[in-house]
Formats: sequence, C-alpha cells, structure tokens
Amino acid sequence: MEPDAREVITALRVRYAECDPMQVAHHSAYFIWFEAGRADLCRARGIDYTAMERGGLFLPVVEARCRYVAGAHYDEELQLTTCVSQIKRRTVRFGYRLMRGDQLIAEGETYQMLVDANGRPRSFPPELFECFQP
Amino acid sequence: MEPDAREVITALRVRYAECDPMQVAHHSAYFIWFEAGRADLCRARGIDYTAMERGGLFLPVVEARCRYVAGAHYDEELQLTTCVSQIKRRTVRFGYRLMRGDQLIAEGETYQMLVDANGRPRSFPPELFECFQP
Amino acid sequence: MEPDAREVITALRVRYAECDPMQVAHHSAYFIWFEAGRADLCRARGIDYTAMERGGLFLPVVEARCRYVAGAHYDEELQLTTCVSQIKRRTVRFGYRLMRGDQLIAEGETYQMLVDANGRPRSFPPELFECFQP
Amino acid sequence: MEPDAREVITALRVRYAECDPMQVAHHSAYFIWFEAGRADLCRARGIDYTAMERGGLFLPVVEARCRYVAGAHYDEELQLTTCVSQIKRRTVRFGYRLMRGDQLIAEGETYQMLVDANGRPRSFPPELFECFQP
Repeated sequence: MEPDAREVITALRVRYAECDPMQVAHHSAYFIWFEAGRADLCRARGIDYTAMERGGLFLPVVEARCRYVAGAHYDEELQLTTCVSQIKRRTVRFGYRLMRGDQLIAEGETYQMLVDANGRPRSFPPELFECFQP
Repeated sequence: MEPDAREVITALRVRYAECDPMQVAHHSAYFIWFEAGRADLCRARGIDYTAMERGGLFLPVVEARCRYVAGAHYDEELQLTTCVSQIKRRTVRFGYRLMRGDQLIAEGETYQMLVDANGRPRSFPPELFECFQP
Repeated sequence: MEPDAREVITALRVRYAECDPMQVAHHSAYFIWFEAGRADLCRARGIDYTAMERGGLFLPVVEARCRYVAGAHYDEELQLTTCVSQIKRRTVRFGYRLMRGDQLIAEGETYQMLVDANGRPRSFPPELFECFQP
Repeated sequence: MEPDAREVITALRVRYAECDPMQVAHHSAYFIWFEAGRADLCRARGIDYTAMERGGLFLPVVEARCRYVAGAHYDEELQLTTCVSQIKRRTVRFGYRLMRGDQLIAEGETYQMLVDANGRPRSFPPELFECFQP
C-alpha cells in the first residue's frame, strides 16, 4: 500500500463565525478542523469513535501545535489532509496539512493518549492499534 | 424582596475570537454569554448545576432568541443582567439584558426544560423549584 | 417556479468541538450552521457576500431565534434547509429547518438588516432585492 | 524589576459551551483563553491593540502550541499567567501557564509576527518594542 493511500482528505469551507476582525479564520478554528479531519480518518479506517467512547476509551489531545503559513478567508474551500504519523502502545500522533488548491495554508500536529473513563492511560486494543497504523 | 435583588450581573470582556469580519462580536457568542449569566445566577442562588447533572437532571435549551441592538467590539467591557422570568412545573424561562454602560447592546431569552439522562421531561424537585423563583 | 426550488440544502456533520457535556451539539452551534446555510443560499443565487462587504454593504443579524426539537450528536449527518421567508426594502428574513433524515432537529429564523460600513440602514440595490426574493 | 512583575494573571471561568462530551474544556478553547491573556498583558503594559490595528499594524499568530496536563471542568476557576518570552525586530513570543490553584492544567506558546494591512512583515515601532520587552 502506498503511504498516500493512508491519508484522508477533508473538504472544508471557511465559515463566517470562524473569521476574526483580521478577515481571516481565527487560529483556534484550525484545531477544530483538524479534529474534523481525524473524524474522517477514523471513519475511513472503520473506527467508530463514538462507540469507542461508549466503550470507555477516550483519546484526549495532550499536545497540539499549528504553523500558520497563509490566511484562510470567508467562504473559501480548503482541503485538509490528515494522516497518522506515529502510533505507540498508548499514544498516537496525527499530522495535518491544510491547502487551498496549491497553496499551503497551515500544517499541524496533535499528540493523543488513550485513556479510560477515569483518565488513566490504556494500551490500544490490538484491532485499534492495527487501524491506527501510519 | 425587590425584583432587582433576584437579578445577577455578569461582567464580560469581548474576546478577539468572538469577533467577526464586521469587527463586532458574532451573534452566536451572545448565547454563550447568556449561559455564563445563567451559571452566575445558579451559583448566586446556591444551585450547583454540575451536581445537578451528576444527579441525572439536565436543563437543555428548547428555545432561544436574541435581539441585537448595537454591536459589541473587541476588548469592550459589557454588563449582562440575568433573571428568571418564569418557572413552571417542568420548564424555566431566563431573560437577559446586555449593556455597555448605559447603552443597550442586546436582550434575549432562553426557555429550558428539566429532563433526565434519557431526555424525558421531569418536574423540578421542590428545593430547585424554590431556587428558580423569579 | 415551485417554492421548493428556492430552498437550498446544506449537508452538515456535527463536530466534536460543537458538542457539550450533555453529549449533544451546543445550542449556539445552530446559529453558526444557519449562517453556513445562508452562505450556500447566497452562492446558489449568485450573491457574492464577500464582494458585497467589500462594496460596503453588510447584513448583520438583528434578531435570531431557534427552537430545538431533538439533540444532534457527534459525527451525525444533518440536512439544513435554508430559505428567504420575507424581503422588505431594507430587511430580509431567513428561515431554517434542520433535519436528520426524517427527524426534525430544530427550526429557526434570522432577521437581518442591510447597513453600510457606518451601520446606517440602506435599501437593497434592485439586483440584490431580486436575488433575495422568497 | 523582578521577572514576575512582567507577568499578567487572568482569571477565567470555564464556560459550558467550551466543554466537550469528555466533560472537559475542548483543547481549542485554550488558545482563545491565551488570547484573552495577551489582551490583559497588552492592557497592563499600555498597549492599545485596537488602536494598533486601526493604525494598520496586526499581530497574527504564525505558530501556536499547547501541552495539556490535566482537564479543566465546567464552572471551574482557572488562573492564566501570560508573559512575553522573546521579542525580536518583527516577532514576539508569548508564554502561557494555566493553573487551577496549585495544579498545572496546561502550558503553551504563541509566536506572532508584526504585519501591515497587506500582510507584509514590519518592524516594531520603538515604543511598541519597548512595551513588549520580556
């Protein structure tokens, strides 16, 4: 399988409420878009995140970062590429690349840890570990 | 007791992320401010909303409305007055008046229903009914 | 032309960040979705809202209301129908109906006024008035 | 002057809309809080950010990161400490430490660049450079 086949692309349209007085999408909105990308990646790989939470496993973000390269404006269509960059026994790292056509808008990363309902770290069940392979 | 003594005033400062390309606070932000006002009103009346939810009682919004009179700008200080305008067996209505000094910014209302964890309507327990008196 | 042909349908997927501790989309998120519906309606009717603002005409919300009928959950797909319910010389009223398949989730309305960059009410230019016909 | 005297503390209360189905504040909310901290730091140092933008100087975020140590829950009071960690000719770096009493909740950083209305990098005017000294 080629690496690209493991990436998932999410189409986004910038909402008015996401834009700020500088006329560009607010930097906090990108993390919400990244999360939409993760949702699409999970769905594409057969991971039902809602069922996972119902089953007592959660994947909170323990680190997040974003580098903003160019502004995104109201009503523009963006393409977000999401991938798993690393999986370990109890953590997973996602990478994000946000484009407007050929123009890079931002790139970012989230580092997430599997925990139970009490917030205690847990190891990925084998089938989940498999689904999250880079 | 005078009616005014039943109102609660919340000081708010307009955040940059709450403002939109028109340079004013986005109309959706007002409902989040109203909720902060309800939180203050509950606290002032000795209602622990977190404990209420933990006990299986929730107060979802079933109707919300707002009338916007003047724009609120970044970094401005606003004063939100929250009151209970009506309590019935299973519903409560809150009123909101948002001011910047003497200037009316907005006024609004939320209508909320007491439900259990399954979303079924419930009657207010007597002590809660008492706390929510207008 | 049939009335339905004047409506625009927007597909939405509920984001995690839009959901609250009650496990449903927060009531403020609906107004952001309604705005996405307006954007789609404008685009479908050939109205370039960004160009309108650049040209010094704005359409702030002066009243908004929503009635919440059923909760919307994380990752669910919703269908939002947006229509113009009324146009007058300087104001326009939009109606919204949010569905999850056959189930009504919410219905709402925004009342908006055409203003210039100084916030003064303006009359719709004839071509814009035409585009906003119900 | 002691280093601590250059820090600014912002009191925050976690809003319901900021919390997600995991019952904690969503990770995107922290960046909005950090921005509120920057606003307080600017005000404390006599910087009028609104006037700065009106004068054609903007300070967009070009990099942001946050490390989440413990969850923040609805209605909790948090203390955010904001400082300038570095100032260069055209960039400034802010550091953030979010506490709930003695408990560290998160720490983060934003890296921001001075630009003009066309997005071109600009050098800090001397008086602004002085105000942003760590």
